Amino acid sequence: MFKFELIHTDKKTGARAGILHTSRGKVETPAFMPVGTQGTVKTIIPEELKDIGCQMILSNAYHLALRPGAELIAKAGGLHKFMHWDMPILTDSGGYQVFSLANLRKVEEKGVQFRSHIDGQLHFFTPESVVQIQEEFLGSDIMMPLDECVDYPCSKSIALSAVERTYRWLERSIKTKKAKKSALFAIIQGSVYKDLRKQCIDLMSKLDVEGYALGGISVGEDKSDTYEIVKYCCEHLPKDKTRYLMGVGRPQDLLESVQYGIDIFDCSLPTREGRTGKSFTSKGEITLRNFKFKEDFTPIDKECSCYVCKNYTRSYIRHLFNTSESLAPRLNSLHNLYFYFSLMKKMRQAILKDSFLDFKKEFMRKYTTQ
Amino acid sequence: MFKFELIHTDKKTGARAGILHTSRGKVETPAFMPVGTQGTVKTIIPEELKDIGCQMILSNAYHLALRPGAELIAKAGGLHKFMHWDMPILTDSGGYQVFSLANLRKVEEKGVQFRSHIDGQLHFFTPESVVQIQEEFLGSDIMMPLDECVDYPCSKSIALSAVERTYRWLERSIKTKKAKKSALFAIIQGSVYKDLRKQCIDLMSKLDVEGYALGGISVGEDKSDTYEIVKYCCEHLPKDKTRYLMGVGRPQDLLESVQYGIDIFDCSLPTREGRTGKSFTSKGEITLRNFKFKEDFTPIDKECSCYVCKNYTRSYIRHLFNTSESLAPRLNSLHNLYFYFSLMKKMRQAILKDSFLDFKKEFMRKYTTQ
Repeated sequence: MFKFELIHTDKKTGARAGILHTSRGKVETPAFMPVGTQGTVKTIIPEELKDIGCQMILSNAYHLALRPGAELIAKAGGLHKFMHWDMPILTDSGGYQVFSLANLRKVEEKGVQFRSHIDGQLHFFTPESVVQIQEEFLGSDIMMPLDECVDYPCSKSIALSAVERTYRWLERSIKTKKAKKSALFAIIQGSVYKDLRKQCIDLMSKLDVEGYALGGISVGEDKSDTYEIVKYCCEHLPKDKTRYLMGVGRPQDLLESVQYGIDIFDCSLPTREGRTGKSFTSKGEITLRNFKFKEDFTPIDKECSCYVCKNYTRSYIRHLFNTSESLAPRLNSLHNLYFYFSLMKKMRQAILKDSFLDFKKEFMRKYTTQ
Repeated sequence: MFKFELIHTDKKTGARAGILHTSRGKVETPAFMPVGTQGTVKTIIPEELKDIGCQMILSNAYHLALRPGAELIAKAGGLHKFMHWDMPILTDSGGYQVFSLANLRKVEEKGVQFRSHIDGQLHFFTPESVVQIQEEFLGSDIMMPLDECVDYPCSKSIALSAVERTYRWLERSIKTKKAKKSALFAIIQGSVYKDLRKQCIDLMSKLDVEGYALGGISVGEDKSDTYEIVKYCCEHLPKDKTRYLMGVGRPQDLLESVQYGIDIFDCSLPTREGRTGKSFTSKGEITLRNFKFKEDFTPIDKECSCYVCKNYTRSYIRHLFNTSESLAPRLNSLHNLYFYFSLMKKMRQAILKDSFLDFKKEFMRKYTTQ
């Protein structure tokens, strides 16, 4: 039921246009997933997401397992029904969140024990339980296995040990997985060490997984290291499976990573910046709260044709932010998401015409002028 | 351009069905106006308001004059264009807000001096300036004059003095008003003193105004006093003009007041309760955060056919409230507003069939069971 179809690779770069076929519809790649951590893309309803070109969203098994509880969502008929979204959902296992808890967690071979960041209650996640949560309770279309995440910077020996444990946990995840409906991706670790990334890819590409996620990227390393690792991994990953760069990023990061051959992304930026008053425009990012927009009666982005840009001015949305009106994050998030989906669509069109580099160059020329 | 057309009066009560004709479209009465104090009905876009039957909204000259400033809105092309709402807007003068500032304001015959509740800056409102703000800068369809509001309880002599000043200020407001587009209502004061209410009505009904608002109602007096005054005023107000009960109320208040002959209402309850997690249902009000709704997979109101009730469960919306997700107030406000508009529509249909009392009885029988 799940299949990645590679449609075209740009002649001058590694950029790929494809289609992810799932039982809940197809996703054209390169694709961007908005973040719906707690079963909602903040401030936005599913109908609006579909209207602006969203085909898949990300949610998080860790957060949902804590609140409202995976069993409750199962009783509700699964995550799709619970949140009124009938298109594909990719769920993160929560490995990253658990490892971010630092002093609140304890890792052992069986799994990871942690205290909830909400009420301090003890929980134990195993590779098996997170597959069960995602597959049986939530009904995800794409699941992520439990992985061991390392800090940045981290020594090579610690990075190696995390790669090995993540591999063993992946084997257990594959054994647990039952349904044909939910796909399982592998998570490639290895920090900034190319040979470890290569070792991880070689190990995992022998296993029965439907795609590869790059983990431990954009965790504090230099931008040049990020790109170097993404590029290196793309060169060594199997070409017939989906490549997913987790938690990235700004428009320029998406362009750079698509160029190397990444297919899907998730990032909270469009909605997070949407709430704080930052807007993405064809000329770069702007901060709507700034005084200079007080009497600016033009849209957020003159080149944008989203609902927000067609009907509201910078001046009005600035007023909403300044008066703490809840319509402000709603409108700004909607615009920002539209900007992201529109960017992905344009990238795909450029790839299909073998003109990705030209598109990227032109985009970046305009994008950096502010 | 502005005209109130009385279509029908219920045979057994004073309940009226009418049409308010304005240059921006008609408003079927009895009508409810959602509150858009700062140029936005909290969390909701204009298209959604129209979809659920909203024909007129309320905004507030006081708040808009402070932020973003009336001149700025004038530069934006008026309030309708600024906030992307092309149907009628009634603006309150802000008299009530200014008088609520207590120690921050000083009343004299010329007008009222006050300090902004936001930054403490000094402002001076006169009957003339608030008409100018509403008519010239905001472009309201219905304006409210500056009135002197009194506390509750208040002595008869103070109430009388407020009636007299409000009358003199109304005369000055009428003299200031220029355009034919904007209608001006009178505000009837007089606290709980029937003879003062009568005196105010007699004085003001001789002036050239397009409707009558009841001010100083629901300010702390007993419910029985509220209804008594509303009933008494309706019996004495001219029948050919609109009657507006300011800042009221709960569903049961609307039913009671429509029965006496009130035509239009405004109240922040549907959106305010919407944000705090209270929902209006055909069986009464419920608090969605309650534990008992944790696994309640039914809609907010089984008898409701709004977007929210068609697509989401109490359990899901409770989860959104518990995780402080901004979609919670949005969905709950939308449902609550739908409930209010739907109630007004049903009241109107009942009036047209001379069955208002039966409708009210049946509504109240079900509404009080929770």
